[in-house]
Amino acid sequence: MMLLQTDSQNPNGELDRTAVDQLFRAARTHSAWLDRPVSDDQLRQLYDLLKWGPTSANSSPGRIVFLRSRAAKERLAPALAPQNVEKTLAAPVTAIVAHDLRFYDELPRLFPHVDARSWFVANEPLVETTAFRNGTLQGAYLILAARALGLDAGPMSGFDNEKVDREFFPDGRWKSNFLVNLGYGDRSGLHARNPRLAFDEAARIL
Amino acid sequence: MMLLQTDSQNPNGELDRTAVDQLFRAARTHSAWLDRPVSDDQLRQLYDLLKWGPTSANSSPGRIVFLRSRAAKERLAPALAPQNVEKTLAAPVTAIVAHDLRFYDELPRLFPHVDARSWFVANEPLVETTAFRNGTLQGAYLILAARALGLDAGPMSGFDNEKVDREFFPDGRWKSNFLVNLGYGDRSGLHARNPRLAFDEAARIL
Repeated sequence: MMLLQTDSQNPNGELDRTAVDQLFRAARTHSAWLDRPVSDDQLRQLYDLLKWGPTSANSSPGRIVFLRSRAAKERLAPALAPQNVEKTLAAPVTAIVAHDLRFYDELPRLFPHVDARSWFVANEPLVETTAFRNGTLQGAYLILAARALGLDAGPMSGFDNEKVDREFFPDGRWKSNFLVNLGYGDRSGLHARNPRLAFDEAARIL
Repeated sequence: MMLLQTDSQNPNGELDRTAVDQLFRAARTHSAWLDRPVSDDQLRQLYDLLKWGPTSANSSPGRIVFLRSRAAKERLAPALAPQNVEKTLAAPVTAIVAHDLRFYDELPRLFPHVDARSWFVANEPLVETTAFRNGTLQGAYLILAARALGLDAGPMSGFDNEKVDREFFPDGRWKSNFLVNLGYGDRSGLHARNPRLAFDEAARIL
């Protein structure tokens, strides 16, 4: 990528160490939250970054429901695994990362140069796989966009997707994928970091 | 996130505009590549960033096969959709983003404080969903880690997953998910950017 060189890049176009630490090396999954709110404007900034991440044929199936009010959180609570209730109620915002099974109706606008909508009509397995894969990519973009904006994230799969879908998406068109608590994490609440697989365990160069 | 303030952050802990542009706003999916190689060391740096991205119970099911040699690319070519052949053969590296259906055997080491392995043994639907969801998250981390390192990415779903699995993963344990071409993109090869959904089309605040 060739952009103007600035303080946040080294001569190879890499972001500086502090930026990369904030995104990857020093970032942690948080369960304890500072008493500091997240504004509507921040949630709109978050979406306005994550939306640019790539999806297959620009399909953009990801849908995000930000739960911030006490009432909205209490609709979610019965679907949460017990260990996720307290931290989720305490988080300034909880995002339901979902996907729209009719995402392809937007393709004439999102990917106008070919008839991509026709690839999906009446092909339910392709619709479901594409929505899940690309909605998940957009959920990852949300996590990293949050970190880029100085927020912390606490993603979770420990909840009952069907209960969430019945409560929030009763018409069956959107499906929940995973949850992400958002706010300013209390680093004093962190445990030691779990290890990761070494390169040679998880990757190969051919 | 509270880290030391540096040039790459503004006072709210946000990364500076140039860094955020490089990750999201100015980054593009590339199909045309400059004649500039990607080294083993860069691929190891890439893995050493993406590995830190969060996965459910630190399950880390993603596996990456980096194809760089002509011979490896030619093993991939018969599985590619016609429109993806030329750009993939031309890319310095093509990553097969895959996942390991036996990822849970590593959980005693990756998530040692509970017996997470037992959640997955003999629960094939949970194994498949967890591997696909979290391997996809790791693929998104790969795309954004590449951009953080100054590389460009060209992710693709247009290929025959079963053919790739037969050729590269004949024992059936790893499954291909999507592909990502990596290198230094030729921005003169880019078309105008496709639009994205507006906040109110894809998100809600409750």
